[in-house]
Amino acid sequence: MDDKRLVRPFSLYLVTHAELEEEPLFEPLHPYQELKEQQVEYIDSDLSPPEKVQRAVDCLPLQRTLDDLKSGFHRWTILDYSRAYTSGKITPRMVADRFIVAARESSNPPLQMSFFINYDVEDILRQATESTHRYEKGEPISVLDGVPIAIKDEIDCSPYPTTGGTKWLHKLRTCTGDACCVMRLRLCGAILVGKTNMHELGAGTSGINPHYGVTRNPYETGRISGGSSSGSAALVSAGLCPVALGVDGGGSVRLPASLCGVVGFKPTFGRIPHAGVLPLNWTVGMVGVLAGTVEDAFIVYAATNGQLPSQQSTILPIVEVTIPEIEVMRLAHYVTIGSECSTSLSSYLQKLNFAELGWDARVALSVYGAFSGKDYIKAQKIRNRQMKFHRNIFAKADVIVVPTTGVTAYPVKNDVLETGELDYINGAALVRYQIAGNFLGLPAVTVPVGYDKAGMPIGIQFIGKPWSEATLIHIAIAMQALRISDCRKPKVFYDLLNKEE
Amino acid sequence: MDDKRLVRPFSLYLVTHAELEEEPLFEPLHPYQELKEQQVEYIDSDLSPPEKVQRAVDCLPLQRTLDDLKSGFHRWTILDYSRAYTSGKITPRMVADRFIVAARESSNPPLQMSFFINYDVEDILRQATESTHRYEKGEPISVLDGVPIAIKDEIDCSPYPTTGGTKWLHKLRTCTGDACCVMRLRLCGAILVGKTNMHELGAGTSGINPHYGVTRNPYETGRISGGSSSGSAALVSAGLCPVALGVDGGGSVRLPASLCGVVGFKPTFGRIPHAGVLPLNWTVGMVGVLAGTVEDAFIVYAATNGQLPSQQSTILPIVEVTIPEIEVMRLAHYVTIGSECSTSLSSYLQKLNFAELGWDARVALSVYGAFSGKDYIKAQKIRNRQMKFHRNIFAKADVIVVPTTGVTAYPVKNDVLETGELDYINGAALVRYQIAGNFLGLPAVTVPVGYDKAGMPIGIQFIGKPWSEATLIHIAIAMQALRISDCRKPKVFYDLLNKEE
Repeated sequence: MDDKRLVRPFSLYLVTHAELEEEPLFEPLHPYQELKEQQVEYIDSDLSPPEKVQRAVDCLPLQRTLDDLKSGFHRWTILDYSRAYTSGKITPRMVADRFIVAARESSNPPLQMSFFINYDVEDILRQATESTHRYEKGEPISVLDGVPIAIKDEIDCSPYPTTGGTKWLHKLRTCTGDACCVMRLRLCGAILVGKTNMHELGAGTSGINPHYGVTRNPYETGRISGGSSSGSAALVSAGLCPVALGVDGGGSVRLPASLCGVVGFKPTFGRIPHAGVLPLNWTVGMVGVLAGTVEDAFIVYAATNGQLPSQQSTILPIVEVTIPEIEVMRLAHYVTIGSECSTSLSSYLQKLNFAELGWDARVALSVYGAFSGKDYIKAQKIRNRQMKFHRNIFAKADVIVVPTTGVTAYPVKNDVLETGELDYINGAALVRYQIAGNFLGLPAVTVPVGYDKAGMPIGIQFIGKPWSEATLIHIAIAMQALRISDCRKPKVFYDLLNKEE
Repeated sequence: MDDKRLVRPFSLYLVTHAELEEEPLFEPLHPYQELKEQQVEYIDSDLSPPEKVQRAVDCLPLQRTLDDLKSGFHRWTILDYSRAYTSGKITPRMVADRFIVAARESSNPPLQMSFFINYDVEDILRQATESTHRYEKGEPISVLDGVPIAIKDEIDCSPYPTTGGTKWLHKLRTCTGDACCVMRLRLCGAILVGKTNMHELGAGTSGINPHYGVTRNPYETGRISGGSSSGSAALVSAGLCPVALGVDGGGSVRLPASLCGVVGFKPTFGRIPHAGVLPLNWTVGMVGVLAGTVEDAFIVYAATNGQLPSQQSTILPIVEVTIPEIEVMRLAHYVTIGSECSTSLSSYLQKLNFAELGWDARVALSVYGAFSGKDYIKAQKIRNRQMKFHRNIFAKADVIVVPTTGVTAYPVKNDVLETGELDYINGAALVRYQIAGNFLGLPAVTVPVGYDKAGMPIGIQFIGKPWSEATLIHIAIAMQALRISDCRKPKVFYDLLNKEE
């Protein structure tokens, strides 16, 4: 790696030459006990995943049913699936069949959506058959039973290799079983329908993958889906699954969610166990959920996490706040995630022919490997400084409301698969408002709020205090309710419950 | 700094190319509540420093008095001073006068011991006069009242600048008052007698300072004292103070203590507040105490720290343990302290003419600045790995007993002040057994046990579990008792209580 550097680090003047009084803060850990939310019921962390799911469902205001949905476009929710299965009108096996047809159609010309890196038809049908039997016996495990859920290919999930969006990582690192979060979903009866496409090694934001294709935006296939959890966001948008798992190290769940018009939820740093997730970084990344609705994101979060806050209702006044030095934070986060990614991959990269990397990952890893120890530690001083800024903001605000991205989905250029794409201007705009979620470990959720002139989705983001998922979710649900009839159907959409047939 | 690099990093092959499963561990923090020592009385942390000192004295087995000391050589202890003052045979003012004579004599030719960077005669006499008045009124504040204590010039202490062993740092960073630990000693009535010499910026282990002279070993003035807290160790050895403060980031208290035949004590990471200490690193350094006896080190520790464990008596069986990968740990620590030092000084170094640095500091800082972010994070993975090794050892052992250094005090070469000295072989041997104390934040104490063939002192080190200072101190006291009659008087020694006059 050292001998193959393609570029010297670009000038991170704001980080390298920052004069900072603050001590470095190496991990965005927040004392949990001190920050327990008020007016929130905490669910026993010893409950099984299916029990947690039931508690989450019980505490959510889920009034909507299949029949409410006549006006406007809505994606089917977990409860839509569960109710359809329970009513017997449709079975998990029927959904699986439709899913397989849709996955094939979306993967092949002319669409070539590149949602997937891997899906195994036999494995899907086996799970669907088992789930169907459970419903036939009247014994579904939870509302997730039979619900198709896709997993970003950065998270271990049997029987698939974990490629991280590469052609080589899975050959060097064997996937030996489900990640903890995946296992919990499996325990709830979910059908794990395959591994989704992602930006190569998570080292970019466009979702353009030279090995597995450009994940295309269902609202406009000539445009990017955003990344790095590109496939998870795009296939939820296209109706293939009501929910999918992603990993968010620099906005990688919320960013593609926003660009694809769905919900993206990243909990507080440390909420969801990281076991079985590629260790591409240690201090900024977190498993997150992509879903059609905030409620569904919360249900899956409930199934996967250790401690679970329940319902809360709050009326919040609105105050204007300023987040200082937001661009410095972005650069400090870039140094951090880059240095950590470079470290985590270093033993592999020594053995690797660089030609096996796509162009933009090659450049990114070269930049990542060129940061100095001093740059890294200065970035941690900036982390501490930003933590103070946010502590001050949270002294007067419960939630920060910002745009999710600084730009909507932009067109895919024709030659990107051959030449790669390094669009640092759009990349910076895409992640600008995401970074506090990762660098400071704050919970954050993006909800679709509308469309730009080109018809591409726009998201609004709610960033909460540490461990304040309950507040956050309920504000996001309120926001979602305000615009629920204004949801547009993507150009590429599969109706797996097939109500209209 | 970037443009002035003198050397590329030497090959830290064992760190840079280490293949490690472990996650990085950035700070050696140990959960305090879980590790409270058994059979130990905890002293209320709300007590004032003088009250804490009294509790420490009460719980120590301090039977020795002035009259017990007829056989063999012993340095005067804090209680020797306190009892002499209380008896009225001698006053703090008399001690201060003798101290000033001794300080001058030791500083001037022919001795040129270079114990000090600064001492202010007026300030010393003022404090001594006030202390004398308190004893005259029968109102000494604590057993530390009137006791001369010297402070390493890395720790803020009014009215002195804090040079860090340089000619420029104090011009860029103003000392605005006492460090927290110094203030606590002042509150106990101690006479703060000046700032001690140190290895420039703490960036070396010999105690050879090109600006303030070679701190010479009182046992043999042609030999090094060891560093970086060279002056504090050497002047305690030479009888100028019963105790002195140092800072231990890579053995810098224990190492010179061992070479100068005195006790050196470094508490658990986080025990003594770091406020007012030069922030030369963030994750390995700690204030420590140099003293003639373990008891005195404990009394001063009691005065300066937040939470204080009291007496314990334990009989421990002896088992043999192996500490794996000790050399890798040393290198990982070197990358860590180097990167942090380089970061902490970076804004100063930008403004600095490198010619103001001594040769070896110039080389050290150039090496420090050349570590990559990847090297730094790999070192933190090694920290986690070593933490596991030590956790396994501490599952079967309460205390690890090792030599303090791998070599005793070596001769000072004639030209070191002009050319500098970069002796990485001896440097590595000096710190080999120290590193767990810093890198893993473990408490450790060195006690003199004997002399080599050249008559230079040898130390033995006890490394404890996190927060286990009580166990450690009492084992060290037992060790000290075993060899108390074998203590040799240094060639340079000042008898400030002047009992034999």
